[in-house]
Amino acid sequence: MSGYFDHIAPVRYEGPDSDNPLAFRHYDPERIVLGKTLKEQLRFAVCYWHNFCWDGADVFGEGTFQRPWHSGADALSLAEQKMDVAFDFFARLGAPFWTFHDYDIAPEGSTIRESRENFARMIDRAAQKQEETGLQLLWGTAKNFGARRYMAGAATNPDPEVFAYAAAQVQQALEATHKLAGANYVLWGGREGYETLLNTDLKREQEQLGRFMQLVVEHKHRIGYKGAILIEPKPQEPTKHQYDYDSATVFGFLQKYGLENEIKVNIEVNHATLAGHTFEHELATASSLGILGSVDANRGDHQNGWDTDQYPNNVEEMTLACYEIIKAGGFTTGGFNFDTKLRRTSIDAEDLFHAHIGGMDTMALAFMKAADLYEQGELQRFVDNRYAGWEQDLGQKILGGKLDLAGLADYAVDKNIAPKPVSSRQEMLENMVNRVIFNRN
Amino acid sequence: MSGYFDHIAPVRYEGPDSDNPLAFRHYDPERIVLGKTLKEQLRFAVCYWHNFCWDGADVFGEGTFQRPWHSGADALSLAEQKMDVAFDFFARLGAPFWTFHDYDIAPEGSTIRESRENFARMIDRAAQKQEETGLQLLWGTAKNFGARRYMAGAATNPDPEVFAYAAAQVQQALEATHKLAGANYVLWGGREGYETLLNTDLKREQEQLGRFMQLVVEHKHRIGYKGAILIEPKPQEPTKHQYDYDSATVFGFLQKYGLENEIKVNIEVNHATLAGHTFEHELATASSLGILGSVDANRGDHQNGWDTDQYPNNVEEMTLACYEIIKAGGFTTGGFNFDTKLRRTSIDAEDLFHAHIGGMDTMALAFMKAADLYEQGELQRFVDNRYAGWEQDLGQKILGGKLDLAGLADYAVDKNIAPKPVSSRQEMLENMVNRVIFNRN
Amino acid sequence: MSGYFDHIAPVRYEGPDSDNPLAFRHYDPERIVLGKTLKEQLRFAVCYWHNFCWDGADVFGEGTFQRPWHSGADALSLAEQKMDVAFDFFARLGAPFWTFHDYDIAPEGSTIRESRENFARMIDRAAQKQEETGLQLLWGTAKNFGARRYMAGAATNPDPEVFAYAAAQVQQALEATHKLAGANYVLWGGREGYETLLNTDLKREQEQLGRFMQLVVEHKHRIGYKGAILIEPKPQEPTKHQYDYDSATVFGFLQKYGLENEIKVNIEVNHATLAGHTFEHELATASSLGILGSVDANRGDHQNGWDTDQYPNNVEEMTLACYEIIKAGGFTTGGFNFDTKLRRTSIDAEDLFHAHIGGMDTMALAFMKAADLYEQGELQRFVDNRYAGWEQDLGQKILGGKLDLAGLADYAVDKNIAPKPVSSRQEMLENMVNRVIFNRN
Amino acid sequence: MSGYFDHIAPVRYEGPDSDNPLAFRHYDPERIVLGKTLKEQLRFAVCYWHNFCWDGADVFGEGTFQRPWHSGADALSLAEQKMDVAFDFFARLGAPFWTFHDYDIAPEGSTIRESRENFARMIDRAAQKQEETGLQLLWGTAKNFGARRYMAGAATNPDPEVFAYAAAQVQQALEATHKLAGANYVLWGGREGYETLLNTDLKREQEQLGRFMQLVVEHKHRIGYKGAILIEPKPQEPTKHQYDYDSATVFGFLQKYGLENEIKVNIEVNHATLAGHTFEHELATASSLGILGSVDANRGDHQNGWDTDQYPNNVEEMTLACYEIIKAGGFTTGGFNFDTKLRRTSIDAEDLFHAHIGGMDTMALAFMKAADLYEQGELQRFVDNRYAGWEQDLGQKILGGKLDLAGLADYAVDKNIAPKPVSSRQEMLENMVNRVIFNRN
Repeated sequence: MSGYFDHIAPVRYEGPDSDNPLAFRHYDPERIVLGKTLKEQLRFAVCYWHNFCWDGADVFGEGTFQRPWHSGADALSLAEQKMDVAFDFFARLGAPFWTFHDYDIAPEGSTIRESRENFARMIDRAAQKQEETGLQLLWGTAKNFGARRYMAGAATNPDPEVFAYAAAQVQQALEATHKLAGANYVLWGGREGYETLLNTDLKREQEQLGRFMQLVVEHKHRIGYKGAILIEPKPQEPTKHQYDYDSATVFGFLQKYGLENEIKVNIEVNHATLAGHTFEHELATASSLGILGSVDANRGDHQNGWDTDQYPNNVEEMTLACYEIIKAGGFTTGGFNFDTKLRRTSIDAEDLFHAHIGGMDTMALAFMKAADLYEQGELQRFVDNRYAGWEQDLGQKILGGKLDLAGLADYAVDKNIAPKPVSSRQEMLENMVNRVIFNRN
Repeated sequence: MSGYFDHIAPVRYEGPDSDNPLAFRHYDPERIVLGKTLKEQLRFAVCYWHNFCWDGADVFGEGTFQRPWHSGADALSLAEQKMDVAFDFFARLGAPFWTFHDYDIAPEGSTIRESRENFARMIDRAAQKQEETGLQLLWGTAKNFGARRYMAGAATNPDPEVFAYAAAQVQQALEATHKLAGANYVLWGGREGYETLLNTDLKREQEQLGRFMQLVVEHKHRIGYKGAILIEPKPQEPTKHQYDYDSATVFGFLQKYGLENEIKVNIEVNHATLAGHTFEHELATASSLGILGSVDANRGDHQNGWDTDQYPNNVEEMTLACYEIIKAGGFTTGGFNFDTKLRRTSIDAEDLFHAHIGGMDTMALAFMKAADLYEQGELQRFVDNRYAGWEQDLGQKILGGKLDLAGLADYAVDKNIAPKPVSSRQEMLENMVNRVIFNRN
Repeated sequence: MSGYFDHIAPVRYEGPDSDNPLAFRHYDPERIVLGKTLKEQLRFAVCYWHNFCWDGADVFGEGTFQRPWHSGADALSLAEQKMDVAFDFFARLGAPFWTFHDYDIAPEGSTIRESRENFARMIDRAAQKQEETGLQLLWGTAKNFGARRYMAGAATNPDPEVFAYAAAQVQQALEATHKLAGANYVLWGGREGYETLLNTDLKREQEQLGRFMQLVVEHKHRIGYKGAILIEPKPQEPTKHQYDYDSATVFGFLQKYGLENEIKVNIEVNHATLAGHTFEHELATASSLGILGSVDANRGDHQNGWDTDQYPNNVEEMTLACYEIIKAGGFTTGGFNFDTKLRRTSIDAEDLFHAHIGGMDTMALAFMKAADLYEQGELQRFVDNRYAGWEQDLGQKILGGKLDLAGLADYAVDKNIAPKPVSSRQEMLENMVNRVIFNRN
Repeated sequence: MSGYFDHIAPVRYEGPDSDNPLAFRHYDPERIVLGKTLKEQLRFAVCYWHNFCWDGADVFGEGTFQRPWHSGADALSLAEQKMDVAFDFFARLGAPFWTFHDYDIAPEGSTIRESRENFARMIDRAAQKQEETGLQLLWGTAKNFGARRYMAGAATNPDPEVFAYAAAQVQQALEATHKLAGANYVLWGGREGYETLLNTDLKREQEQLGRFMQLVVEHKHRIGYKGAILIEPKPQEPTKHQYDYDSATVFGFLQKYGLENEIKVNIEVNHATLAGHTFEHELATASSLGILGSVDANRGDHQNGWDTDQYPNNVEEMTLACYEIIKAGGFTTGGFNFDTKLRRTSIDAEDLFHAHIGGMDTMALAFMKAADLYEQGELQRFVDNRYAGWEQDLGQKILGGKLDLAGLADYAVDKNIAPKPVSSRQEMLENMVNRVIFNRN
């Protein structure tokens, strides 16, 4: 083992009364909620990039973490050391899944061939690690945004050679994900957008992106990969505008390219808020459109206009989100991936544990509260009752196409209708939610 | 005539050197730009609601305008007086088009029947006014958001009777628009959204909205109306979240309900900025999706988070917008409608003139600058050149489906490709635009 | 009594397990927390304006509430009816305090004299009501923003006659507050800002505002009023920019006019968030500057850019806020005033109860959780320990003026210092807070 | 010379009709405007950090610029090469001033002593360069935010040793600025703020910051430096909240520590907009408070919530800003520093020229337009007239303390005053501004 985390004992569930800061208080992986264990419901994943690759640098300052594997002479042996540490961390934390980009786990070489060789070698090591530890892959992805060649986009680049380069990366990363039995493959288009319309052919770039997505789906079927393909919406940052702005935008795009039954979305909390939506809005929207795939669980800062990628810690917000997920039937291939990073001032090894423990406890508690809301059923009954008219004669005629616009006008005039407003009871319903969250159980 | 504006002479074009604040300095309606007169290109419309209905009240204070037609005993004769004043204003300003909601021009009665009678009567008067003045209708619409009955939505209301009421209003307003030879019919869903997901069935409401739109399109064809049906996107306000969030969202919605060839968008500047987009982004997006219909020309305040509906006065911003409109081929049925309101401290009759003159001069100057940009062609040549690779062998193979993902990976590896980044020249292009805007012509 | 609320029983504390939606689950007024009853700690107040004056209208739609006292022939008798209803509501809810603007309780007359007479008459009635019910006044204020005359400001108006009018209103409202034994007098400058710098003399307006505040303070002392004078910061809305932007801005203003020991701030949650701050930031800032006075407890919507004035329902957010208040020593003259309004679709009498019960339970629970945090002391110990160096030699020398810049440079160079970064433990501390909020007690 | 820019000819003024993209079209340094040359009025400075230190990396991707001086074995000789290139750029561009941080021009060593030696050596070289080229220093500053030691603040760090380190840096940088005859010394507290209140002693940190500022001012006087000390406000980023939030906040802080006559502000456009203000608001505020020092000319992106630091290109926005500067008397020690960076896709040497030429032409044109507005005087006359009442009897009595609150109330009641609202003419004034900007001259 790596030794880096040796001073930290594997994290255990100790219950709400524990005052051990390095134990779970709410996440009991074996607890049965809505017919499955919490482990099965939540499908927690730890990401590779923020935790093991990022050095703590931001736009205004140098790295602060100084992990042993961050500097050294031989890139490949550093990558191996990093993977040992990462899997040790996953195991000590007790997360069942992990997630990665191709060049998180393997160093880029000086040519595409060398890069692919490095990646192939590290995939083998990851497969072995998975086998040794029982850890599973929630999803893999390719880093089509970090290198200089992608500065003006990958699939949407003005240069088709860059498209080809990106395609080659995705082909290898998708096959790697297949090999590692990843439950999903994710596409986040960090540079698939524009900086200014002055130098951009918006329509052409979207055509390129549509073709790229079709290629990925075609390849998936060709190689027999059964996992889900997911697009991760984000409105902006690093680009001024990203084409996969939010779930509704992605849905329009998917329909245009005939992909609405092939690709779902991986919704990130902080990306939702950057797009001007609540997280639960994005979940409800994706669910209503049939494209809810997986979740990047984190949180943004309502006062800061960039992706802060903090660990989720708001049980009230997450309860509403989990309620939408439960109503949608829960995760199938998806899960909660912590696409989260430490504050750069949290420089110790144990901070990685505090952060993930807090995130996992928050999501577990929120999920249990949401399950209570769901099982208790009051909210749903209120909503069903509110729309009851649509199950009756007039509503069914309208939706069933039995009344046209003129027919509706005649109906209204003949009856001289004067519909009576009914209270929407927003405040009462908000209290109802808090009653479940702050009960004594 | 009404007398209210008698002290203000009809507004004339006097050229850039004029220092008459009540003359046009840039909007010369007969000037030929890109093969048509500016009048034909810009198709300016003055809206009825902000100018003649709104009394200057805001959430924190009472009305300030105190127009003679704002208070009095008999609603119908006030409505007639208001229409006289409005058409007098249109004529003195020299705007070729107007726009209205049903209950802008007619008072709501105590029953739906009475409301329809009032509206029918005022439509007749409007038809007569149009004939007398030569003024044309850019678009009509129904006010499906102001009345108490619509507090929880119109088409998306939990009560199908409210849907029927809204349908009756739209049927009459659409037929009125047809009768008045309106070039378009607009739907803005001010309450078609939600306040909280707790009391909302998101999927059901969207189904209702989809059916509503289909009904409108079916009725349009049935009555032989040839104008365009337009949805006006807005992300929020008054609701927390409005379903027609932005152009991309509307496009996804239209596809879902098979309406993408039937309905276009009416894009408002301030709605674009509230949705986190530039105005030119919304135009370029709608154009690339084939749904660019018309424009509500106004401006928001970048520091204030609500719809301020100010008059456009930023030539630089509007030049970029007009450039997108010109690239899209210019308006067909659409035009520039000033969905704008006076600051509530601008209480005099002449303020209405200052405001519209400023807006029309801004748009005219911006359109001429954009035409210069377009005719000069440098920007377009830069863009064409930037993507030239996509017209060559590799690009054509990718877009033509001649290379699959594995084929692309083989290509990349066999050639050991290392695409060379090329400067995107954003700053140079921004200078190029300013060179056209601030030339001496 | 008024009869309007007769069907709703007085609200009682029934404990966390109650499922009576019209009972308190957390607000037990007699429970002792940190040495006082919750009633004494929280000092809840119900506001007059949103609850009894506002009719549910917004910018896009008409009133929805249709309370009996909203329409009728005689303004004064409607005002009396409204006051009866209001005091009945206060009593049934069990709030110990109320708050009002002058023209909330009295109708404006057609002249200033008539307005003052109306107000004087209603003050007498309020005094009698207070005596009958035992209810107390948390604060009074004057409505210097609603009337047309204030459209361009009150104290900051270009016309000194408007200043005089506002002064007369404040003089009467301040004396009324004195008479009603109000604990504070609040000044919110809804129109004390600007719409555009083009027509504004910023410096002059601030001088006017400074003089106005001095006049109020002088009058307070002259009449022997012992309550606190409070300014309520808000960054914008209705104006583009309001001079009392946030607590730090107000502090700078107060110092400039020699008022920093005379005036404190009344901080509103939603005003804090509109200014780009968390609520707890505004509290901590005001506390650190010695100007924390009172609180308008509500919440904004993080996705909407205007003052939504919703009822507080986020226990986690409010716990952090209460923690700052407790650290500051708790309220003296201040309290939690619910400057909150129903969603306009919550049209029933009982919605007013649901809303306030939710708000009071949220604040009570948050206060108890914050008291736990405070008494447990872990957070404070962490902070004290973090800054311990400042209590030692070097720190004390720096703060005590014993080392100048050159001396500090010498110290650094002589010792060749290399300070060692220490983890800030943000994630651990966030978990610590959640541990207290979601414990089982 | 460095050779890097040899292919680019020195930039000349060629007038508005030039189509040479590498010439000035508006910035004619010798043109007399308001009694001085444009060179003297605008005092343009080029910054060292974004142009010569930054490698094009962002949070999501690696460096893109690959300048020759960005990598190599010997840090000091790279620094020398960089300085040669920088001064060559300044000269070819024709900017009269430059700006720098200590560790922009000198590499940090492994100890504070080595860092100071490096810096001392590079200061000598800079002095020599200045002498050779005639270039002047607009301001110097110290980089108290980039190094790991500053991750939790410099002056506001929990560790007084870090304060001492920062003090040593500022002492040397201030003396260097003195030696280089810098017109100002700037303090930007990139980490002087907090990430979470949970680990922060807000009051203590502000005391530390206040003492730090006093130390700097004391040292300035001690060494006889006559330039201005400036604080650069920024609301957030990199920290969640920065103490120097905006000009009004800084003014409150300065008064608290007795520094309001010693320190002014350096206002950055993009920092203003991040704080929720227009740039002209910040200028007008600082001017009205007597603390307007200098300007960082750049622009933000209204849709993106981080500091994009783009080059100014909006003449209309900058005209309003320059108008405030001219009304304030123009710059004394201050100037326009381009704290701007290339888009990371603008990778060529010539992009640095396009960008600065665009920025300088924008500011020059805006300044000339603002001078026209100022000389023409219409705006000022409107404003003076609007407030004329304050120069008359009632206004003078109020401001002169001749009327107290009771006296004002008596005045209002005795006269039964009913002040008459007057139109604020916002739209007319906006047109007036556009008339000047888009005249033919």
